Amino acid sequence: MSGFQPAEFETRTRRAQSLMATRGLSALLLTTEPELRYFTGYLTRFWESPSRPWFLLVPATGKPVAVIPSIGAALMGETWIEDIRTWSAPDLEDDGVSLLADTIMELTASDATIGMPDGHETHARMPLADLVRVKAALGSRKVAGDQGIMRALRMVKSAAEIAKIENACAIGGRAFARVSEIAGSGVPLDEVFRKFQILCLEEGADWVPYLAGGAGQGGYQDVISPARPVPLAKGDVLMLDTGLVRDGYFCDFDRNWSIGPPTPEVQSAHARLIEASDAAFAVARPGATAATLFHAMDDVLRRDAEGTDAGRLGHGLGMSLTEWPSLIPTDHTVLEPGMVLTLEPGIAVGNKILVHEENIVVTEGEPRFLSPRIGPEMPVL
Amino acid sequence: MSGFQPAEFETRTRRAQSLMATRGLSALLLTTEPELRYFTGYLTRFWESPSRPWFLLVPATGKPVAVIPSIGAALMGETWIEDIRTWSAPDLEDDGVSLLADTIMELTASDATIGMPDGHETHARMPLADLVRVKAALGSRKVAGDQGIMRALRMVKSAAEIAKIENACAIGGRAFARVSEIAGSGVPLDEVFRKFQILCLEEGADWVPYLAGGAGQGGYQDVISPARPVPLAKGDVLMLDTGLVRDGYFCDFDRNWSIGPPTPEVQSAHARLIEASDAAFAVARPGATAATLFHAMDDVLRRDAEGTDAGRLGHGLGMSLTEWPSLIPTDHTVLEPGMVLTLEPGIAVGNKILVHEENIVVTEGEPRFLSPRIGPEMPVL
Repeated sequence: MSGFQPAEFETRTRRAQSLMATRGLSALLLTTEPELRYFTGYLTRFWESPSRPWFLLVPATGKPVAVIPSIGAALMGETWIEDIRTWSAPDLEDDGVSLLADTIMELTASDATIGMPDGHETHARMPLADLVRVKAALGSRKVAGDQGIMRALRMVKSAAEIAKIENACAIGGRAFARVSEIAGSGVPLDEVFRKFQILCLEEGADWVPYLAGGAGQGGYQDVISPARPVPLAKGDVLMLDTGLVRDGYFCDFDRNWSIGPPTPEVQSAHARLIEASDAAFAVARPGATAATLFHAMDDVLRRDAEGTDAGRLGHGLGMSLTEWPSLIPTDHTVLEPGMVLTLEPGIAVGNKILVHEENIVVTEGEPRFLSPRIGPEMPVL
Repeated sequence: MSGFQPAEFETRTRRAQSLMATRGLSALLLTTEPELRYFTGYLTRFWESPSRPWFLLVPATGKPVAVIPSIGAALMGETWIEDIRTWSAPDLEDDGVSLLADTIMELTASDATIGMPDGHETHARMPLADLVRVKAALGSRKVAGDQGIMRALRMVKSAAEIAKIENACAIGGRAFARVSEIAGSGVPLDEVFRKFQILCLEEGADWVPYLAGGAGQGGYQDVISPARPVPLAKGDVLMLDTGLVRDGYFCDFDRNWSIGPPTPEVQSAHARLIEASDAAFAVARPGATAATLFHAMDDVLRRDAEGTDAGRLGHGLGMSLTEWPSLIPTDHTVLEPGMVLTLEPGIAVGNKILVHEENIVVTEGEPRFLSPRIGPEMPVL
């Protein structure tokens, strides 16, 4: 089944409203794609266009209210949302500002505080000048932060969400298993990138919002550079890291291959990465923290090697390619069943790096790999 | 050649600094992907991850200064930018805020006004709470809007930019020409969407950030819905609308096909759409306005038909799928040579719609089609 049953959105809304009540918020004001989709199921690639703002209000009780451009009315009308207010956007005089302010005033009391996500990893997808206008139009009502409510909600996935992420991981796994069809000595890296995206689509991805990777003798420079038309050569390590989407949920894991037999250094580094992710997997239980997982990996990596500049060794995963928490020493987020995480250790090999990444879900007992876990041997192309 | 010569970025920076001087701004503070790439050439798909903020400062004189997560240092180091300041992100205590504020204070006088894009179609890609912190740290310096500088700069493309958009259009045109290989009666729409993205990649797209479309008897409901597993049937109209990227620049145009012979109503509506886009093309000269083009199309469409809920009949195109201006009655942006526009008339056919879209560039004389212009006959699959 694509999408979710209405009960999924009812539960999410009820959880939000419960947190809002304890934190003194009369409504949430949301502006980004995953935030709107979390409560509505509204799924479209139209967000790629930055022209129009979209708003969703989660009131203290009852269903969320959509305040959106008219171009989205028909599709929003297919969701469980009933109160859909539209304007013809873009409107250069008033691009939804009055309609949004009027809706907030109708749904909240005059002393209300409206919460907008304002912490790490968030942004407001609307013009700053229009946010000032909305605030001014609200009179005695205040706009404040959401006190981490959206983060807390999205961080713990339902069984239905986990099934979707697992499906995306399975698609990625099948695509990775076919890389020998498209990559090898002499094939330019940009051609590998194009053809790997084709493999992802052939295996069932709806689209491929993210593909990164690298290739070079004995490792790569970084994991975020675009592919260049440089042919793979013997001694290269090839890495592909994909965030493909199926039914609105991401996978995010990578694989490394050696072009020809790996050097002992490369093979050893790869085995060390697998050992590190396995060490984090072993301690990924309820009650452990994001920092616990970081240290489990870091202890393995630092035995006789340097790290990388990535800034963290994994993160949350779901409707976005990366979500809360971060696997860093200072993130003390306590793990709960239903959290989906990437384990992403990196290691320096000379002036190059190697990075490995798997996806897991935290359960009541042992965690579970969502990506098809691999062993220490680096595969050879 | 991929990317641009440094002279392209020097010119862009000089134009920005000239506008800043006339408007009393000592620096621009930029946070989004196209804004950073416009001045640096920094091209990566890593923006898909919302975790880390990225900052670029354009000072009153000299090269832009990057204030970015350390994971991006190596790739930014390959651009023409020299002053690259990094922090290990994510940092839950201070995610670049102090580094950014210190850099602004170093580069500007104590009475400086720093401009951030704040108008239509913009947003600040950083946490709202961190923006408050940055402003507080700047003391006597003020953060204000950019007074439309980024919009004005990006709206008029260089010859090198136009060549990249034209290349993306050619790739899209070759993919559209092959749709008979993948679509026809009995093929589910979601399979058509997957396979069309494959065609785009095979024909040279680096990636396919946007694909929309629709299918239905005699037309479709809207142009933003995701594809469902519903087989195409005789009498359906299929529409595919792609924003594929090559070397960082988009095309954005669509094509319609009839599954089996079209009804007279559908064929007539399609011919009307072509007549409308041709009418806008005919008047797309320097000195005309965005509104001129809207009315040229609207006059044709309204002769005996209804419009759609799209809100506009075309828009700018370039590093983003949609850019300034909007082809609406109230947008009086004056056309200049180098503007790249989509002409996107839509028409109601009963309770369905049809939409057609082409891409053109404004020149000193006649405009030029960047997409391979088609005729009034609706192609049949």
